[in-house]
Amino acid sequence: MDEGLAFDVFSRQCPSRGTLEHVTGRWGALTLTALSESGFRFNELRRRVDGVSEKMLSQTLHALERDGLVHREAQPTNPPRVDYELTPLGRAVAERLLGLIELVEARMPEVIAARERYDAARGGR
Amino acid sequence: MDEGLAFDVFSRQCPSRGTLEHVTGRWGALTLTALSESGFRFNELRRRVDGVSEKMLSQTLHALERDGLVHREAQPTNPPRVDYELTPLGRAVAERLLGLIELVEARMPEVIAARERYDAARGGR
Repeated sequence: MDEGLAFDVFSRQCPSRGTLEHVTGRWGALTLTALSESGFRFNELRRRVDGVSEKMLSQTLHALERDGLVHREAQPTNPPRVDYELTPLGRAVAERLLGLIELVEARMPEVIAARERYDAARGGR
Repeated sequence: MDEGLAFDVFSRQCPSRGTLEHVTGRWGALTLTALSESGFRFNELRRRVDGVSEKMLSQTLHALERDGLVHREAQPTNPPRVDYELTPLGRAVAERLLGLIELVEARMPEVIAARERYDAARGGR
């Protein structure tokens, strides 16, 4: 049996929907993509993901760690140091996200032109 | 000049971040992916995207239409009928999302196993 067939993000009860939300949510996509560049310590990651609060980054990392996408490694140093890196599964997800982000960034001139047309047709801003 | 270089989702002021949030947000990803299967009327789409409220679907479609990803076509029928379909840009984005969703669905057995290990290590639920 192909187990993949058992999961369907379009069904609200399916656990895959929660995972999709963790990887695409407001901070999940940026956190995974940042970690595809390198491992990071918490505060480094917070600087890379511009605008995220400490609380939101912490929640995001916990959800991604629980889903097996991010590995958290506490170093036995003094002061303690915590590193975050992608698991192989997290890397596979991050590659897909990176493709999506690169597409969005590359096509932003079209998006901005569309917004201007939309606003102009409705009385402008 | 490669205009794509001018946009960076990691910068909180960059307009590309808003577009990324529209396409990956709680309902944006499912709405775009549903529309990659076929055009839909509003109520058909609402049934396909299980769990979305009328208000949230309406907001999601407006944001995607304004960004030039979804085309809204009001048919001159009685009663009026409104169809939604992807633009070429929306189709390109939806293809990337579909790749991400297929990966997540296929790897859910690993995600579920990771959740069980995570919860067990913290005393269970």
